Amino acid sequence: MLNQVKVGIVGGTGYTGVELLRLLALHPNVTLHAITSRGEAGMRVADMFPSLRGRIDLAFTDPAQADLKSCDVVFFATPNGIAMQQARELLDAGVRVIDLAADFRIKDVAVWEKWYGMQHVCPDLIAEAVYGLPEVNRAAIKDARLVANPGCYPTAVQLGFLPLLEAGIVDPDHLIADAKSGVSGAGRKAETHILFAEATDSFKAYGVGGHRHLPEISQGLASASGHKVGLTFVPHLTPLVRGIHATLYGTIKKETDLQQLFEDRYADEPFVDVMPKGAHPETRSVRGANICRIAVHRPQGGDKVVVLSVIDNLVKGAAGQAVQNLNLMFGFEERMGLEIVPLSP
Amino acid sequence: MLNQVKVGIVGGTGYTGVELLRLLALHPNVTLHAITSRGEAGMRVADMFPSLRGRIDLAFTDPAQADLKSCDVVFFATPNGIAMQQARELLDAGVRVIDLAADFRIKDVAVWEKWYGMQHVCPDLIAEAVYGLPEVNRAAIKDARLVANPGCYPTAVQLGFLPLLEAGIVDPDHLIADAKSGVSGAGRKAETHILFAEATDSFKAYGVGGHRHLPEISQGLASASGHKVGLTFVPHLTPLVRGIHATLYGTIKKETDLQQLFEDRYADEPFVDVMPKGAHPETRSVRGANICRIAVHRPQGGDKVVVLSVIDNLVKGAAGQAVQNLNLMFGFEERMGLEIVPLSP
Amino acid sequence: MLNQVKVGIVGGTGYTGVELLRLLALHPNVTLHAITSRGEAGMRVADMFPSLRGRIDLAFTDPAQADLKSCDVVFFATPNGIAMQQARELLDAGVRVIDLAADFRIKDVAVWEKWYGMQHVCPDLIAEAVYGLPEVNRAAIKDARLVANPGCYPTAVQLGFLPLLEAGIVDPDHLIADAKSGVSGAGRKAETHILFAEATDSFKAYGVGGHRHLPEISQGLASASGHKVGLTFVPHLTPLVRGIHATLYGTIKKETDLQQLFEDRYADEPFVDVMPKGAHPETRSVRGANICRIAVHRPQGGDKVVVLSVIDNLVKGAAGQAVQNLNLMFGFEERMGLEIVPLSP
Amino acid sequence: MLNQVKVGIVGGTGYTGVELLRLLALHPNVTLHAITSRGEAGMRVADMFPSLRGRIDLAFTDPAQADLKSCDVVFFATPNGIAMQQARELLDAGVRVIDLAADFRIKDVAVWEKWYGMQHVCPDLIAEAVYGLPEVNRAAIKDARLVANPGCYPTAVQLGFLPLLEAGIVDPDHLIADAKSGVSGAGRKAETHILFAEATDSFKAYGVGGHRHLPEISQGLASASGHKVGLTFVPHLTPLVRGIHATLYGTIKKETDLQQLFEDRYADEPFVDVMPKGAHPETRSVRGANICRIAVHRPQGGDKVVVLSVIDNLVKGAAGQAVQNLNLMFGFEERMGLEIVPLSP
Repeated sequence: MLNQVKVGIVGGTGYTGVELLRLLALHPNVTLHAITSRGEAGMRVADMFPSLRGRIDLAFTDPAQADLKSCDVVFFATPNGIAMQQARELLDAGVRVIDLAADFRIKDVAVWEKWYGMQHVCPDLIAEAVYGLPEVNRAAIKDARLVANPGCYPTAVQLGFLPLLEAGIVDPDHLIADAKSGVSGAGRKAETHILFAEATDSFKAYGVGGHRHLPEISQGLASASGHKVGLTFVPHLTPLVRGIHATLYGTIKKETDLQQLFEDRYADEPFVDVMPKGAHPETRSVRGANICRIAVHRPQGGDKVVVLSVIDNLVKGAAGQAVQNLNLMFGFEERMGLEIVPLSP
Repeated sequence: MLNQVKVGIVGGTGYTGVELLRLLALHPNVTLHAITSRGEAGMRVADMFPSLRGRIDLAFTDPAQADLKSCDVVFFATPNGIAMQQARELLDAGVRVIDLAADFRIKDVAVWEKWYGMQHVCPDLIAEAVYGLPEVNRAAIKDARLVANPGCYPTAVQLGFLPLLEAGIVDPDHLIADAKSGVSGAGRKAETHILFAEATDSFKAYGVGGHRHLPEISQGLASASGHKVGLTFVPHLTPLVRGIHATLYGTIKKETDLQQLFEDRYADEPFVDVMPKGAHPETRSVRGANICRIAVHRPQGGDKVVVLSVIDNLVKGAAGQAVQNLNLMFGFEERMGLEIVPLSP
Repeated sequence: MLNQVKVGIVGGTGYTGVELLRLLALHPNVTLHAITSRGEAGMRVADMFPSLRGRIDLAFTDPAQADLKSCDVVFFATPNGIAMQQARELLDAGVRVIDLAADFRIKDVAVWEKWYGMQHVCPDLIAEAVYGLPEVNRAAIKDARLVANPGCYPTAVQLGFLPLLEAGIVDPDHLIADAKSGVSGAGRKAETHILFAEATDSFKAYGVGGHRHLPEISQGLASASGHKVGLTFVPHLTPLVRGIHATLYGTIKKETDLQQLFEDRYADEPFVDVMPKGAHPETRSVRGANICRIAVHRPQGGDKVVVLSVIDNLVKGAAGQAVQNLNLMFGFEERMGLEIVPLSP
Repeated sequence: MLNQVKVGIVGGTGYTGVELLRLLALHPNVTLHAITSRGEAGMRVADMFPSLRGRIDLAFTDPAQADLKSCDVVFFATPNGIAMQQARELLDAGVRVIDLAADFRIKDVAVWEKWYGMQHVCPDLIAEAVYGLPEVNRAAIKDARLVANPGCYPTAVQLGFLPLLEAGIVDPDHLIADAKSGVSGAGRKAETHILFAEATDSFKAYGVGGHRHLPEISQGLASASGHKVGLTFVPHLTPLVRGIHATLYGTIKKETDLQQLFEDRYADEPFVDVMPKGAHPETRSVRGANICRIAVHRPQGGDKVVVLSVIDNLVKGAAGQAVQNLNLMFGFEERMGLEIVPLSP
């Protein structure tokens, strides 16, 4: 077992990248070796992100110059379609890879190509990749060379539905996931619709006709329930920096103690917190931390179960989960570097 | 027909009250006669609400001193349980009453008493009261002595579901209303959970076990569909000042052209805007204005219809709708005083 | 005198443009003739700005196609440097021009060229242009062919300092203007630093070394005081959509009743509200309205005067002031189309 | 030297209290012994603050029951006027005390009594108390029994002005501190003016006539400059949760290399970061962390120096500084428990 892991990050100028840096800066067993950026090569990381002044001493390297093959593990914090171009060469060199984008998340290549609008260049690696949701795939992650880190919505929605589907409690044909995301989920891109004056003090749905996270979620839920699911997924943009709140609806087809079901399912999970009966988790209660808090309700004792599931989209929904996967892959304590208390207020 | 209506407001220190003042200040056919407040009697309205400086020249009057019986109409912008104490005396004096609280909204007295936790003092007036949703009860409102102005969530949810239920398009037993409200919906009360540092940059559900607007909505939807409905209603708090976004889910049981259905239903409605196919209305697109904007979707052509319905909770969800009702009651043009262009950005 | 003015807008896709549309939609004496946009020609205005659905029925026209010469007046809501290219042709055709950008604000061409980094193409028009601050130049504006609409910071800062400088109350060599602006002041440009996730929940100064509004403010203050002023101007970005709060500091060199001084100076001004002694105006008290609210303080009776001056940067700081200028230029009541009550909360 | 310090907190339900808990939860040398609350005795801390679930296992204790005398150190996170009632008894029992309120900050008892509107019950302890600004009083803090933890504004303003005053660079008679605070600075009190719908999307000054932090700041600045200072201090409320941005103005009376002056002054300070020339620190760059970031400017090379100083009001402005003081008092590494990377975005 390594004591110290040499880490590279490809694409460090987005929110996922800077969040990885925030977390890795305090990880005792990580040595940050390189962080690449085509556009910002030469710029000191802390000049772009002053919050990292005094903590991260690296400058961005041009991807072509970065000696990523000497790393033990490389994170891809890149747009979709980049990791699939570069993963094989790294894997061949013995480097393990954690992709925070979507390149290796969906097993059905045709589905992936339809939703992501490009041809996949290495379907064989899709087959090898392990979907990095530790609450489902912990054992496989430990041995994985290539981990597909889950999307933010998929993490919140799957963790909320899993206990119900695994136990066959709800009708899998009529699942509804009404999800709300903070604006950082849209990335650090210069686009008009996520400007402050456009996105603050307003609320809207988007992608109701179809969002790329739908097939990812459906794949995970189908796996949990043992067959195809019918899922209506409606994402919304809400004026938070960070946070996803998934409100999940299912129709109960088998009676059980719902609270107990959730508590049992997640009893040994370090990063899933089942709240007491009647609770309403707030996104700020997980701000900055690698936690999914869940509450389960049955309004008026009717036939519907309502699950409330919150995460920080940049932590348990991205960079934190990636570090959790790194810990599993390298045999570290799963909580290492993730002992952050949420920032509240 | 009156040219000039003499108006009184009971309880003018909350958000509904100040919003009524904002609207009535510009209404050409309204003379503001009195505004009462037990706690702030003597204080000039514009000293409490500087946005009204130069527009509202009144001071708050003690309710006991206010000559409300000389008004043509009195608005109650009070907590629940106040209007029912005072309405009869005003009605007997020939004053028409518009209650912005919940005292007269629910026809079944037992249901009202259960959800509002008090005994109703004038059930006969409940029977007489007209539910002030013009898109449903326009004719009755014109002649009403007593109008029960709808709640904010109920307005957004009913306007979104009505076309589907009236036409029998969706299964009324499995309706889901996932609604998000800005914080002004909680009122102007000194409570910790709606402090800025508690409510900003966070998102949460509340009242999942049961919210007072549930029976009001159910009553309206039952009336539209011709029989009892099964509704799961989950309200959420989102960091906006104003705005409700209702995301409504139904299971289609009868095929129709959904877009056409909505456009036809609201073709003559001055304050309901059916957006083009594929649209996602934002709450800010109605900020400050008496409009409900609606879009209807059928994700992936499946069996679920998703309706997106947005209003400003203080306008079409409260004070604006009350002014719309006043216009109807006094034979004014329905848009009078409500020709406000939404403030965006 | 015209009853109905034919209006054109050049550059209608920014915040100043859409705000002009919001105001002009309700102006009884304005007919909107054309609105141009190079990039969005053909698109309906209300498709880009859904808040204008049902209010503005125009589509954007390509500037080359727009028949602007048939207008009575054309507003330029364009980036700096556009109006100076097109103003002469319009003026020659008898069209009056109101430029909301900075092309004609600074009389000293060399100063303008230094701060704006380009050569001015029509210095003679600078000489002719009237600086459109009605509280200073009302008479000249009435007859102007070409009005240079003031900047947002300059409006708030000048209105706050004017009474003191005109009366020689403060030392003009040591003026400090600490100004805070909402993010809409940065325009509707796809730039990273004004993304929601960058600009919300954070506060910063910018341009401390020198901001383009400095020479504009200095010019106005010098004119008021009769000689050159020494001004330190520090702008800040604060997470509001709209609003400027200028906190102004001067050293008293002549005793006077400060409150009376301000009340007298602005007694007849329809859009300047001198607040009572001890008041602290909030930006939201002018949200959406063409008002500057001012309070004057003398902390602990010392030698410093502190003036608090707030405006909505898009209204009194841009589009509203432009409409006020239009009213003056065409002999309309100065308040016409500007009788909007601020939106609060 | 103790390896493990037994800590008590009096008044743990406000923002300062919960912030202390967030920090102490991760402090390796601290054992949390008791946290008191008159109103919430018996309630589990994590039930009130779900962000602390799994991190803080204590319940609130009634102050009368809490065995505070067995602690090594007690923090007072109480309203002003409480610590002075209880400090002596604890000190007599050998417990060291860190007061996060204002009871022991001002040496001149008469001044304190005037600004805080109450009589001080233990002036002798004021005399003994050490003002807990480590950048000024590090040595004295180490030996102190009683530390007066500085206010939030005073921390930001003093750290910004100190280098200039200690070196006699600016005229001490004309200092201006224009300071902006996030809303958490007002505490977790149920008051109308800090409700979300009142405080968001708005900006205002307050206390221009006189704020309690003025004498505290003046005392510190006088001490640095060697004589009385003339300070105009204007605080503002800005819609952030956390953060203070102080913009400081001084008139230069002695030439020096300002950047060098600041860098030298704070070269060995672990928690003061002098930014590069020309920088504009943002409050979010210190969010959640015990850092003061400072930039110094001289606009247009004139006679004014402008210092920008940012802190997180709850950390370097309160709880973090208190932990820094604890570390000094007990001989721990000064950074212990404070190695938090700011949360950004």
